[in-house]
Amino acid sequence: MDHQQNDHRQAPLRIAIVGYGNLGRGVEAAVAKNPDTRLVGVYTRRDPAGVKPASGVPAHAVADLPAHKSEIDVLILCGGSKDDLPVQTPEYARHFNVVDSFDTHARIPEHFARVDAAARAGQTTALISAGWDPGLFSINRVMGDALLPDGATYTFWGKGLSQGHSDAIRHVPGVAGGVQYTVPIARAVEAVRSGTRPELSTREKHLRECYVVLEPGADAEAVRRAIVTMPDYFADYDTTVHFIGAEELAREHSTMPHGGFVIRSGNTSQKTGHVIEYRLQLDSNPEFTASTLLACARAVQRLHQAGQHGCKTLLDVPPALLSARSAEQLRADFL
Amino acid sequence: MDHQQNDHRQAPLRIAIVGYGNLGRGVEAAVAKNPDTRLVGVYTRRDPAGVKPASGVPAHAVADLPAHKSEIDVLILCGGSKDDLPVQTPEYARHFNVVDSFDTHARIPEHFARVDAAARAGQTTALISAGWDPGLFSINRVMGDALLPDGATYTFWGKGLSQGHSDAIRHVPGVAGGVQYTVPIARAVEAVRSGTRPELSTREKHLRECYVVLEPGADAEAVRRAIVTMPDYFADYDTTVHFIGAEELAREHSTMPHGGFVIRSGNTSQKTGHVIEYRLQLDSNPEFTASTLLACARAVQRLHQAGQHGCKTLLDVPPALLSARSAEQLRADFL
Repeated sequence: MDHQQNDHRQAPLRIAIVGYGNLGRGVEAAVAKNPDTRLVGVYTRRDPAGVKPASGVPAHAVADLPAHKSEIDVLILCGGSKDDLPVQTPEYARHFNVVDSFDTHARIPEHFARVDAAARAGQTTALISAGWDPGLFSINRVMGDALLPDGATYTFWGKGLSQGHSDAIRHVPGVAGGVQYTVPIARAVEAVRSGTRPELSTREKHLRECYVVLEPGADAEAVRRAIVTMPDYFADYDTTVHFIGAEELAREHSTMPHGGFVIRSGNTSQKTGHVIEYRLQLDSNPEFTASTLLACARAVQRLHQAGQHGCKTLLDVPPALLSARSAEQLRADFL
Repeated sequence: MDHQQNDHRQAPLRIAIVGYGNLGRGVEAAVAKNPDTRLVGVYTRRDPAGVKPASGVPAHAVADLPAHKSEIDVLILCGGSKDDLPVQTPEYARHFNVVDSFDTHARIPEHFARVDAAARAGQTTALISAGWDPGLFSINRVMGDALLPDGATYTFWGKGLSQGHSDAIRHVPGVAGGVQYTVPIARAVEAVRSGTRPELSTREKHLRECYVVLEPGADAEAVRRAIVTMPDYFADYDTTVHFIGAEELAREHSTMPHGGFVIRSGNTSQKTGHVIEYRLQLDSNPEFTASTLLACARAVQRLHQAGQHGCKTLLDVPPALLSARSAEQLRADFL
């Protein structure tokens, strides 16, 4: 294909959302910010009569997707990585161009293989594991390694709300509600930025802050101990637990900020070192992820039009294909 | 083409350098850090007998290039943007895959058109304007705009040595030597990072610091005034001039550090804002630029093998093509 020859699209890119949770609502918000795109519908496994998209587009049952195929350019799959996407992405990739945000890092090769087989069979284009990590952070890990092969890469997350760790807290007996923030440790970030390539343990890189609402009569110290000693989730970290009221939890901890850093430091000769840092500071993890998925849908449509079938990731996408602007304008005004 | 199917190269990528200044020496150093590449020769317009590459590769006259065509996969053109590259890149792109670092932003579309015509005629692949700005910073300007279309982008340069401004100083009567550092103003950077999308004048974004060695008997105040009032280069900035001795200039100001930031701030909904920051801190501008050019040479070779002829920029390059690693390894370990 020839990226220089991308037509400046006239017809809007027709997007459909599968799954109307935080991420699906984020895609809906992103469409409103991207005039070259149009949302044609929301598809749900619930009763569509109970789903009222904020933008007024119709809600349909997922069973209606085959009948609506000709109205949809790209499906954005907004389900979860644990149970939804491993089934949905291969299933829909057989018939639609799709984008997902599959983020179980260890299972990406397996997910890729299944989606690739489906998309090749259906002559469609799929882009998996889009978002910021995996996604934008992955691009920076790959480019850092390629640009400074004699070096070390560090990824820090936060300060941000971790959905998985918040869920883990809420399963502790005696806990009525709670959230967990992952916090990069400033001393570690500074050491990495200095270019000294420190070796850092898990405990040295991040700490975990929990805000917990107790059930009536629960033993605070027992809850605290159950949280901070929980294997995999908390035991390898310095964890602090703050007990707060239900009202404070709702008032102060209902948004989903996140972000983080990818830092590469490396040498091009013995005494000559460099530091590359990519940093995100996000008021809303699902809204930013959704906005990234929408830009990826634009790239998927163009790759598909160029005959590139099969499964892709953001590592396979030329940056220009994410943009609504023409290649000529990007060269003249952005290069 | 199909990025998933890139073979893991066995034969090294054969690189030749045209022009053996700071940038050419940087490419030579980068080859030493990238075991999948090999430097086959340095080509010069000078008498090659007077050029002794540090790595021991032979130096040749540029007139020998046609005879050596079969030994070279990619030519990295290390001349200047003012006089060398506008002539050399189209000339060599007719016969070789080439990479250049053409950095006169306003003339990129014109340079692109000439190189594209040459490369299409010769069925070669050319990548122009590689490096960090244009180049890596351009990628981040394009992606920031695509990911957060309701937003503003800011580029800051420095702290770093500006070759053009240093040259301008050295042309002032009474100046025996000198360097100029471009310095981003911390207050402006912080305002941008806060996400408030400030409007910033030229003077508010950067200041300029000059270290100047006077000729014997020169009038320091006259020199200072000539520098700070120089149109285009200094008049629109707050500029400080420090007079130092020749020994201090040689001791403290002989390296070429540089770097900067690209910051995008934008909203995905009315109250939800995000900040994306890409930051480079470089001990040596030419060595880092050269390392980037070498990674681009890898991508050029792969694009060429996939039949993608014509002129490209980094905006057209999938990140995976810059890496020596296989697509499978990148998905498993970097995504």
